[in-house]
Amino acid sequence: MRLTRYFLPVTKETPADAQIISHKLMLRAGLVRQTAAGIYAWLPLGYRVLRKIEQIVREEQDRSGAIELLMPTLQSADLWRESGRYDAYGPEMLRITDRHDREMLYGPTNEEMITAIFRDNARSYRDLPRSLYHIQWKFRDEVRPRFGVMRGREFLMKDAYSFDMDEAGARASYNRMFVAYLNTFARMGLRAIPMQADTGPIGGDLSHEFIILAPSGESDVFYHANWERPADLSSVDFDDAAALQAIVSGHTADYAATDEKRDPAREAEAGEALRQSRGIEVGHIFYFGTKYSGAMGLKLQGPDGAEVVPHMGSYGVGVSRLMGAIIEASHDDKGIIWPDAVAPYAVGIVNMRDNDPACTAAADALYAKLNAAGVETLYDDRSLSGGQKLATMDVIGLPWQIVIGPKGLERGVVELKRRATGETIELAPDEAVARLAAK
Amino acid sequence: MRLTRYFLPVTKETPADAQIISHKLMLRAGLVRQTAAGIYAWLPLGYRVLRKIEQIVREEQDRSGAIELLMPTLQSADLWRESGRYDAYGPEMLRITDRHDREMLYGPTNEEMITAIFRDNARSYRDLPRSLYHIQWKFRDEVRPRFGVMRGREFLMKDAYSFDMDEAGARASYNRMFVAYLNTFARMGLRAIPMQADTGPIGGDLSHEFIILAPSGESDVFYHANWERPADLSSVDFDDAAALQAIVSGHTADYAATDEKRDPAREAEAGEALRQSRGIEVGHIFYFGTKYSGAMGLKLQGPDGAEVVPHMGSYGVGVSRLMGAIIEASHDDKGIIWPDAVAPYAVGIVNMRDNDPACTAAADALYAKLNAAGVETLYDDRSLSGGQKLATMDVIGLPWQIVIGPKGLERGVVELKRRATGETIELAPDEAVARLAAK
Repeated sequence: MRLTRYFLPVTKETPADAQIISHKLMLRAGLVRQTAAGIYAWLPLGYRVLRKIEQIVREEQDRSGAIELLMPTLQSADLWRESGRYDAYGPEMLRITDRHDREMLYGPTNEEMITAIFRDNARSYRDLPRSLYHIQWKFRDEVRPRFGVMRGREFLMKDAYSFDMDEAGARASYNRMFVAYLNTFARMGLRAIPMQADTGPIGGDLSHEFIILAPSGESDVFYHANWERPADLSSVDFDDAAALQAIVSGHTADYAATDEKRDPAREAEAGEALRQSRGIEVGHIFYFGTKYSGAMGLKLQGPDGAEVVPHMGSYGVGVSRLMGAIIEASHDDKGIIWPDAVAPYAVGIVNMRDNDPACTAAADALYAKLNAAGVETLYDDRSLSGGQKLATMDVIGLPWQIVIGPKGLERGVVELKRRATGETIELAPDEAVARLAAK
Repeated sequence: MRLTRYFLPVTKETPADAQIISHKLMLRAGLVRQTAAGIYAWLPLGYRVLRKIEQIVREEQDRSGAIELLMPTLQSADLWRESGRYDAYGPEMLRITDRHDREMLYGPTNEEMITAIFRDNARSYRDLPRSLYHIQWKFRDEVRPRFGVMRGREFLMKDAYSFDMDEAGARASYNRMFVAYLNTFARMGLRAIPMQADTGPIGGDLSHEFIILAPSGESDVFYHANWERPADLSSVDFDDAAALQAIVSGHTADYAATDEKRDPAREAEAGEALRQSRGIEVGHIFYFGTKYSGAMGLKLQGPDGAEVVPHMGSYGVGVSRLMGAIIEASHDDKGIIWPDAVAPYAVGIVNMRDNDPACTAAADALYAKLNAAGVETLYDDRSLSGGQKLATMDVIGLPWQIVIGPKGLERGVVELKRRATGETIELAPDEAVARLAAK
């Protein structure tokens, strides 16, 4: 994409209410703009990142055997009366009345709706186990929206729901999702620590939050120093319940808990290795048994003819919030440093002298070759000073930059810079294309 | 995907309010379920089709040079007061009050929001021309939602907005979108006729609706018989304004008009070649000059220092409605016939005898090979009669079926059936894989 044809409003100033670094950088880098309190428009560069995050979430859900569907944003209040949550849910639920005076709401979550869909369409134990998920916009009417997309009102969430014959089956489904989450966050370059957590308004008796460590986090967390090791991907057969349990056990052996779930005995045991930090929740998983299936009359015919009330769990990932979390975890004083997997473009080309025909010809040729090689490229072909272009590239944080200037070209080289380290090398343009195409 | 692990609630009965064939078939084939009046959940098979339709729309928007972003579903009423439309828009606008008593609405369209974003972030004539689009859920509170997803309340729309220096530039942008629409619908196997149309509440003086002919259509349309020729793709350089104008002129030479825009002189000229039908609107494009930019104070610095008020257009495609329109255009008495480009899976495997180890082994092997070859495959491995499985495959309408039975296997063959024609051939399983992989 050529910047002369793109829409990238990079700015220097940020409003006073942008307190945390990810919020500031998302505004400065032209990723989002607020359109109402806690509601954001995703500008082209930001939307590319959001779609990459969403796609990683989707791929790992699919790999774990979960099946994608899409439920609508608006729900009927009657559905929530069936579970008893319509009155219980506080003012964070956005309640709506339509033209026929029917009570509706903008879904903050979908336990009721998925339970009704499964109840009305599944028939027997043969429809178990199933995990169904969707990636859809939700609304929670936060009293004080803040931290940009981290605590917005309209936000994108992946929520999955599992249906099993019994508790043992539900725990296996829980474990599948637990491992899928480890892989999801690791692919984004994040160390997300699964912590025992309160179940809150969802209910149930087993729950983990997946938490990123960051000074701007909303809550205090306590964990063993072992968690400071980098995350790695789990290669596992999702049909192998024992292997999944082993991974889950391994990832819950070291102490980690939110403020509400601290365990003095285990903290004493950790001793000097106990760490305290602030954390950002990026995922939350729950097992809640028959809470919704029981209340809403979801019953299936069992293998012996008797009725089965499925055991359920629900599993959330804050897709739009992840963009803020990734920036909190990966930036420097010049701007964002995107992990390769979620970068909006892999490389940016900076033409230092757009009024020098040789530089422009070289930059144009390089852009064409990178596109032909399938490398996602943003080309700064604007009439601006080289310094302004370099500053833009640093703030938007593409993983690689190729800088083209007249002195290098005389020697037949361009400069390839890794944004994360600042390391630069000189090499021939074709060699730069070959290196980037191989990644 | 194995059906024993999927969620595909195929049914025989449909509710009485499902009047038109696409609505009935979407329910029977387990594509959607209504969750409130005019609001639908997209079940796994239906959501796959929706995503394929969305992706074709996206690719053709991108090819035309439009840039994708994403605006939120909820908007501030104040934004609509700037254009004067908040009071003018009728009860189809879903008005919402949040916990702080701020007036909001669920966006039925986005002219105001995109104008505000462009006004607040673009700076000079160098930011022109631009076309920005998003694919987002909209809400129109129809008094009588009906026809399933064709006239639902929550619906997925692609809406694009163009910004140009002057009317000539805006017409070039209009033509780019016109040609992008021809290609979009042709890729889905649809003949969509561009018809002169009223501009309605969007305003402006130039407008075309893209209309599919179908007996269940919502409006009367009149057109020259030449439009009965099949649609073809336009290969064009979107930077070549003259070439674009030639295509648009070619596609508006033959008479075609909606009821409100009939032209007796041209109808007389068409004579015996005049046709009348019912039509389904799947796209609508508008040029409306400075209606929104003027009202909302969008001004940019021009090349000579004087201010420019950009000329704008807007361009909608009914993404979710297209699924109904495609089914209206492509079905038979057994069920849906998906065009290849939007089919949820390319092929379905029917194991006629799941209790015959040889059949099951052959079906399993074929499924593995098709997956390895990258062919999207739905495998009916359930314990049901062959007849039931064949009926399911016909109703869900995958383009190809492979039927595996004991007699054929004795001779080393399976049956490959084209859903559209019913044509079947016998061939070795590996040959079937090779044929499908080559498509």
